[in-house]
Amino acid sequence: MPSPPPTPETATASDRTATPAPGMPILAVDAMGGDSAPGMVIAGLDIAAERHPNARFEVFGDAVQIDELVRLSKRLRNRVSIRPTTEIIPNELKPTAALRLRDASLRRAIDAVANGEAAGVISAGNTGAMLALAKIVLKTMSGIDRPAMAAIGPSARGDVVMLDLGANVVCDARNLVEFAVMGELFARTVLGLPHPTIGLLNVGSEEMKGDETLRRAAEALRESPIGPQFRGFIEGHDIAGGTVDVVVTDGFTGNVALKTGEGALRLVGDLLRRVFSANIASRLAYLLARPGLTRLREWLDPRRYNGAVLLGLNGVVVKSHGGADAEGFAHAVDVAMDMIVNRFNDRIRDDLGRHADRERLASDAFRATPPASATSVTTG
Amino acid sequence: MPSPPPTPETATASDRTATPAPGMPILAVDAMGGDSAPGMVIAGLDIAAERHPNARFEVFGDAVQIDELVRLSKRLRNRVSIRPTTEIIPNELKPTAALRLRDASLRRAIDAVANGEAAGVISAGNTGAMLALAKIVLKTMSGIDRPAMAAIGPSARGDVVMLDLGANVVCDARNLVEFAVMGELFARTVLGLPHPTIGLLNVGSEEMKGDETLRRAAEALRESPIGPQFRGFIEGHDIAGGTVDVVVTDGFTGNVALKTGEGALRLVGDLLRRVFSANIASRLAYLLARPGLTRLREWLDPRRYNGAVLLGLNGVVVKSHGGADAEGFAHAVDVAMDMIVNRFNDRIRDDLGRHADRERLASDAFRATPPASATSVTTG
Repeated sequence: MPSPPPTPETATASDRTATPAPGMPILAVDAMGGDSAPGMVIAGLDIAAERHPNARFEVFGDAVQIDELVRLSKRLRNRVSIRPTTEIIPNELKPTAALRLRDASLRRAIDAVANGEAAGVISAGNTGAMLALAKIVLKTMSGIDRPAMAAIGPSARGDVVMLDLGANVVCDARNLVEFAVMGELFARTVLGLPHPTIGLLNVGSEEMKGDETLRRAAEALRESPIGPQFRGFIEGHDIAGGTVDVVVTDGFTGNVALKTGEGALRLVGDLLRRVFSANIASRLAYLLARPGLTRLREWLDPRRYNGAVLLGLNGVVVKSHGGADAEGFAHAVDVAMDMIVNRFNDRIRDDLGRHADRERLASDAFRATPPASATSVTTG
Repeated sequence: MPSPPPTPETATASDRTATPAPGMPILAVDAMGGDSAPGMVIAGLDIAAERHPNARFEVFGDAVQIDELVRLSKRLRNRVSIRPTTEIIPNELKPTAALRLRDASLRRAIDAVANGEAAGVISAGNTGAMLALAKIVLKTMSGIDRPAMAAIGPSARGDVVMLDLGANVVCDARNLVEFAVMGELFARTVLGLPHPTIGLLNVGSEEMKGDETLRRAAEALRESPIGPQFRGFIEGHDIAGGTVDVVVTDGFTGNVALKTGEGALRLVGDLLRRVFSANIASRLAYLLARPGLTRLREWLDPRRYNGAVLLGLNGVVVKSHGGADAEGFAHAVDVAMDMIVNRFNDRIRDDLGRHADRERLASDAFRATPPASATSVTTG
């Protein structure tokens, strides 16, 4: 059984902070990505640096600006290497055009992972460009067909991992199975769940059931080493309901579901703010209920869930929301650090090996015995 | 500009009640569908009967049970015709099996619409069976390729219509355009918006943009008679954000988005209940803020949004949630009545005619002038 999830009463902003491993995890940082870069990025690193005292940061971007900002932080001064770059990838730039900017801060930060100068990269910049650059520069891990974007969100039973969130608009059964394998390990690594449960997102009644791809993915998952953790098909309400720890879906559906859920939470938040500022009585009510309401707001705070990871590449790749503030960016750094210090990428290679072995055994067994249909003919 | 939407401060449970038209709208009712049928169904009709004083109900199911229940309601006694049936379609029954139950309450209620005995049908029973039966018995309206399921939900700017919610797991560009035409009229008919705006649900950044189908649907919508109301692509957060009045998407994505949003709202509701019952201070806070919180809860109440409609068939078809209570069922009856008294199906035929005319004109114009490429050659 998974350990009990944090409740709104007990959760704190540092729930997902990793215990730093011995050695020095090095993170490559794109200082120029995000709405308030580079100020927000360096302020975020300053917060994260306290939580990860052994971490070092290779920071790519405008050297003058970065230097000024880093000087303000006692914590960062000796742990940041400034790596000057001359180009910036704007938010609207198409990925194909971004590929040509060889000295862009984001490009150079990703190059640093490919060169072994850093174990992971983080950026709050152009998502499409980051996806394209990371795939081309870092390459997909052997044994994985397509990388997937994953993130953590709130649910009634604690945190829930969902993937893919938009890296692959169309997915086949093999992709979905690989997403499940990567998502399961991510939930163990970053959420610390010993045996995370997995669900495949589908639609309701029989007539409306999803297509062949989903049915084949479900079959393959049942036969796989993570079969005992697979809970079959789930529906949209199961995401926030906490029915499973890992929600697996294609990138189109996952992207829409993530943003729909965020939108619904924002709507209620806005309406609650209106209710509590309506008159004297409701303002007093807010003061009386403030401890609980504050914990609730902190627990649902999008900043606490900032940091989408691109799984399945040779290197840790974390995307912060472009509009994140320093606190949110620090959370995205936490996710990157958890993956680095817990050796996510080494472990995913082991897990993929187990899956490959199981498949090989299954097909060997099949070859060693006559097929079921032949048997039934001879015995019938 | 659309009229200002109801705000949580002004919305009431009867917002979507139609002004009854002269004449007698007749609704066929499946009394045996739903978790608490037939008691919940008849109690729901009793509530709805007060709001629709001219309506009559043809009620199909177990005559003895229905008769006992109807006797309890002064309002219903003279406005219900009991139509005895001998079979019930269970919730788990596959649509193909349901088709064989010729004397099922749901089947007979749908038959009544096909025979002209009623203008519409309502059921809280098996969704897949209702979809299949309605399509086979009532047939798709001429000019429509596929019917779509639509429903209303809450947004920051009032109510929002979304379709398809699961009738079609895979859709082509033509289907999406037809959904937009039907959804636009539904928003005018049931929400009373004079010029509802329309958005096509898609995913975020350039690299992740949806497929060819969505691009072609967007192009066709821009050229269509509702082009001026079309706002292009929207994302998941725009649904609750109220960016548009009508959200158009395929049935798989729509079903997941609807249930994801519902799940997120339920999560916050549950957590708020916990916050306000935690201790004496928070209970007092609840009492002080109760008027505002009650309005908010009523506004977000799933019962207020009960009643998914199947658009594009020869007849009004409304599906109530299986777990709805009498109040929720009455809301679903409201939706059916709005569509009947505002002649939704006659008007959709007119709108489809306008679309067909526009397409014919466009292709005539194309034939009358040389193609653009040829022109550019002769003038170049």
